[in-house]
Amino acid sequence: MSWISNSVMGRKAVAQGQTGARHHLSEEDQGEFHYVYGPYAEPVLRIAPGDVVEVETLDAFGGVIKTEDDLPSQKLNMPFVNPQNGPIAVQGAEKGDVLAVHIHSVLPRGPQPAGTTALIPSFGALVADANMYLNPATPERVKKMQVTEDGVIFSDRVTLPYEPFIGTMGISPEIEAVSSLQPDYWGGNMDLPDVAPGAVVYFPVQRDEAHFFVGDCHGRQGDGELCGVAVEIPAAVVLQIDLIKGWSIPGVRLETEEFIMSVGSARPMEDAARLAYRDLVRWLVEDYAFEESEAYFLATQAGKMRVGNMVDPKYTLGASMLKTYID
Amino acid sequence: MSWISNSVMGRKAVAQGQTGARHHLSEEDQGEFHYVYGPYAEPVLRIAPGDVVEVETLDAFGGVIKTEDDLPSQKLNMPFVNPQNGPIAVQGAEKGDVLAVHIHSVLPRGPQPAGTTALIPSFGALVADANMYLNPATPERVKKMQVTEDGVIFSDRVTLPYEPFIGTMGISPEIEAVSSLQPDYWGGNMDLPDVAPGAVVYFPVQRDEAHFFVGDCHGRQGDGELCGVAVEIPAAVVLQIDLIKGWSIPGVRLETEEFIMSVGSARPMEDAARLAYRDLVRWLVEDYAFEESEAYFLATQAGKMRVGNMVDPKYTLGASMLKTYID
Amino acid sequence: MSWISNSVMGRKAVAQGQTGARHHLSEEDQGEFHYVYGPYAEPVLRIAPGDVVEVETLDAFGGVIKTEDDLPSQKLNMPFVNPQNGPIAVQGAEKGDVLAVHIHSVLPRGPQPAGTTALIPSFGALVADANMYLNPATPERVKKMQVTEDGVIFSDRVTLPYEPFIGTMGISPEIEAVSSLQPDYWGGNMDLPDVAPGAVVYFPVQRDEAHFFVGDCHGRQGDGELCGVAVEIPAAVVLQIDLIKGWSIPGVRLETEEFIMSVGSARPMEDAARLAYRDLVRWLVEDYAFEESEAYFLATQAGKMRVGNMVDPKYTLGASMLKTYID
Amino acid sequence: MSWISNSVMGRKAVAQGQTGARHHLSEEDQGEFHYVYGPYAEPVLRIAPGDVVEVETLDAFGGVIKTEDDLPSQKLNMPFVNPQNGPIAVQGAEKGDVLAVHIHSVLPRGPQPAGTTALIPSFGALVADANMYLNPATPERVKKMQVTEDGVIFSDRVTLPYEPFIGTMGISPEIEAVSSLQPDYWGGNMDLPDVAPGAVVYFPVQRDEAHFFVGDCHGRQGDGELCGVAVEIPAAVVLQIDLIKGWSIPGVRLETEEFIMSVGSARPMEDAARLAYRDLVRWLVEDYAFEESEAYFLATQAGKMRVGNMVDPKYTLGASMLKTYID
Repeated sequence: MSWISNSVMGRKAVAQGQTGARHHLSEEDQGEFHYVYGPYAEPVLRIAPGDVVEVETLDAFGGVIKTEDDLPSQKLNMPFVNPQNGPIAVQGAEKGDVLAVHIHSVLPRGPQPAGTTALIPSFGALVADANMYLNPATPERVKKMQVTEDGVIFSDRVTLPYEPFIGTMGISPEIEAVSSLQPDYWGGNMDLPDVAPGAVVYFPVQRDEAHFFVGDCHGRQGDGELCGVAVEIPAAVVLQIDLIKGWSIPGVRLETEEFIMSVGSARPMEDAARLAYRDLVRWLVEDYAFEESEAYFLATQAGKMRVGNMVDPKYTLGASMLKTYID
Repeated sequence: MSWISNSVMGRKAVAQGQTGARHHLSEEDQGEFHYVYGPYAEPVLRIAPGDVVEVETLDAFGGVIKTEDDLPSQKLNMPFVNPQNGPIAVQGAEKGDVLAVHIHSVLPRGPQPAGTTALIPSFGALVADANMYLNPATPERVKKMQVTEDGVIFSDRVTLPYEPFIGTMGISPEIEAVSSLQPDYWGGNMDLPDVAPGAVVYFPVQRDEAHFFVGDCHGRQGDGELCGVAVEIPAAVVLQIDLIKGWSIPGVRLETEEFIMSVGSARPMEDAARLAYRDLVRWLVEDYAFEESEAYFLATQAGKMRVGNMVDPKYTLGASMLKTYID
Repeated sequence: MSWISNSVMGRKAVAQGQTGARHHLSEEDQGEFHYVYGPYAEPVLRIAPGDVVEVETLDAFGGVIKTEDDLPSQKLNMPFVNPQNGPIAVQGAEKGDVLAVHIHSVLPRGPQPAGTTALIPSFGALVADANMYLNPATPERVKKMQVTEDGVIFSDRVTLPYEPFIGTMGISPEIEAVSSLQPDYWGGNMDLPDVAPGAVVYFPVQRDEAHFFVGDCHGRQGDGELCGVAVEIPAAVVLQIDLIKGWSIPGVRLETEEFIMSVGSARPMEDAARLAYRDLVRWLVEDYAFEESEAYFLATQAGKMRVGNMVDPKYTLGASMLKTYID
Repeated sequence: MSWISNSVMGRKAVAQGQTGARHHLSEEDQGEFHYVYGPYAEPVLRIAPGDVVEVETLDAFGGVIKTEDDLPSQKLNMPFVNPQNGPIAVQGAEKGDVLAVHIHSVLPRGPQPAGTTALIPSFGALVADANMYLNPATPERVKKMQVTEDGVIFSDRVTLPYEPFIGTMGISPEIEAVSSLQPDYWGGNMDLPDVAPGAVVYFPVQRDEAHFFVGDCHGRQGDGELCGVAVEIPAAVVLQIDLIKGWSIPGVRLETEEFIMSVGSARPMEDAARLAYRDLVRWLVEDYAFEESEAYFLATQAGKMRVGNMVDPKYTLGASMLKTYID
């Protein structure tokens, strides 16, 4: 992970690329899972910057959709969906710092077939919300898929690559406690496929010790998470959580060996795109020595835009730039 | 180009992959360029399905921004921007058919440096429109870049790949004549980087002989065309224009050897995304034998979304699916 | 109508409140109706500023929905809906002038019951567009209502006031020819209930002699034109059309004895609201001697917002200010 | 207030129009004010349905903007703005009930001039958000206005009527704690001028004893709260809080002697409009015996739409129907 300290252009992580203690947060250790990102829950674990945490996450349904006959409308109890592990307190973190979360691995847990997707009435990007439209509902349906590191068996005809990522991850807002279904500047339910093994994700700390949450892993997902439900899996996630003191960022950023990315969550979608690209321009100016209009031109000619989700309470998009163009 | 007839799953092009006559439409042949996509202009050329046309396009500024001192606010005369070649009449085309346009090549024309981008007041994705906001204006600026097939010289520090495409292309609406700055179901100013050499673009014919227009080539562009001006170049474009009888599609589609893509243009951006993905689901059902909910699931788990432009009167997005998953 | 010359604060109409010649444009005189607002049609009438024109308009369906059994999906032939009278050429009008249209009266024509509304599949504010959503369609239905100057007989239980207005009215764009279903800065299908007898509507002239169109009268309508179809009536409309030289406005404005209003048409709806309010602030500064921040404060504390339509290709909103606060 | 029991068409309030005990919640009684609507704060008061509560609210700035020289950027400490009184626990309230809040009066408190508005950088409907746009900021400015029951002295030139209402009011979500700057289905920062003396506002209870909050009174406000700051006043508010058992509503509703109104909060603005109108149609069907398509037609021809705010994290609109048309 030595590339991190270079990539943030001199931003110094507390642990300086050193690996600290290793913690294991099992389902049993977690006990009660959480359905909001907020400051009102007691930490389940306290770590030092640089520590590695292995977390056993539940799937977004909390495991209650066991077969294709378990319909979400019968099995789910809103708002108790998308259960989250945490909060994990990070010693020394304060408002104005950045939590740097290195994603080492995301592996499926549990009996096969482990992956679940579903068509849920009044939910999804191509489904009319019954609180806004008069149309008859679309049918409800659950689909189970076998998921291994070798692939996602979508159907007899189609096998898709296993490209796992973390759907929901972030830190507590300062005074709000917000549904784990929602993404925002603190992270949360971004459903952004780039939040994957090999990436480092940066979160702007809002309160003492940050209070980190994680859950909702996906075996894979297309851009936009169209029907609102990816290949939902219980997972074992390995993260290294580091701290960068005194780095003020307005929202989530991430980087990999290949690119840097600014993330925006908002409605309508163009505002998410603007948040992401505006911050990418800021990042290019602050850390990569581009004059602002040059940064804007470069983003115009070489920026990439990922549509993470177009189904959550806010849509999430990521604007990125290849490092080969800016280093 | 024999892959086309396979890829549209039995949709039979009139010319059946045969190359017809070759036409050259020079600047001089074109004479008067057009600023609307509409049925009120006389065809400049009439071709048969399968014919190849080489077209000399102007850049989006009509060539009037010759140096970095030529400011758009002084040189442009709205609404006379984004000049288009055409209309080209295609014999036998009728409402209810599809025009299939194979893009063979897009090469830069004219003296170097040929590529122009610009920051234009009150225009661009990160610029507040003075008809909606009270903020002071952002500065105006023109940037010239050398463009060859070897690359776009963005600055001393950055060279970007030459990845050309056609910013504006399409067919005439039935009774409307719409600004060449606007994209819609008939094509137009989509600013979608996938409209590139190697692609076949499908347009739903709206009137007899289709009346095809083309212009506005880009040496390259990032997702979203952030500042509203890509690497604008005058170009020599080679197209083969074929016809598929009796194929009813609601908007623009395209395909390459790797993927199929449905295109949506709308505001807000999520509606463009919905148009694109909704049509991709329809296409998977009609031509690839997926049951609708399976198509919706597959798009959820494996769909890709390209943000073409987020600056034009309608935003353009393309939803795509790899052929390896569906053939 | 002498209040007009005062209300625009010294903006001098050519006819100075004098009534000129009176013209009658019957259905027969009109002959062929128009379905686009554009510069490509020959004027059906040429008038002088200050002249009065009585126009016989068709309803938005062109009269083909004669009974509740005439379903739009069977009777309409898209895009040939919303037929318009005109264009009427106004002598002396040039780009940079304003056409000032005084609405004297709107009276229902034809046999009773004359008023038609309808639920049309895949259309309307609470109906999911089949090009974006997967839901089953809503039912189609036509409703006829007796309309007289005494009221609209909505049902045995409900009678609504007759509060007529003109749904579609405006001037030709410079080079575009745009569907009469769409509103924009030139007017068009605004479906704004304030475009009613007693109002003067200001349009920014885009070409020589303006080329004025009008049609689509409504016996009444709620805010937003929710299902997309108001109480559609054929009507006899009396207008006085005057000209204000050298007044540059970015879009449609109107005024009555009680208020001034700026009109915005855009998607998403907040952009229509911004266009309207931004222009109201500009108007207060230019003609009512408010400093800009004071105008912004006044609009904040005393502005009114009308939602005209939330169903057309662009939504139309009007931001207004009572004259008692500003004169 | 006997009209209430009639107006909700047989929905029976617990207190049946009887006035219960009277409570006074002074600034001192309140002690610590709240900045989130959530279930994690201890009730400051517990009342029975039908009780009357007089509450002393602070202005949205917590009183720290004392003069026109007190700039928000210096005096405010985000996110500690828009302080709220409460929570007030209502005995017997459960999820699935409705809290019916009768607004008796809203009177300005404190020394004159009591009313404050302000232009705040990067905030307001006509101001570009610095996290999305590159434009230079607009100037910051505070404006103080004398506010009495006789009027709001806007300037030497303009006096506006005193038309007070409650900007922020509602009940706790079930598990979320959301900023008092945000409106949603539970109420909150709706900034809707109809939440005024004479109205009864209905909130869908989400947790035991409801936990009611209130604050942020306005001496008056235009539609949309354009610059984001109304005539902000500290106020004495008199409310009667009643309970309707077993009435399931999806969001906020209100009624006056003249009309019923459904409220929607969302982005983009058309979604707020859809939520509001969709619920109005539902209300007309459930309580006023209209068949659904008739309710949709009636809303089309006679619905009114109020734009409450177009500046908060969600925009709030209210769709209403005159009782004369439906009773």
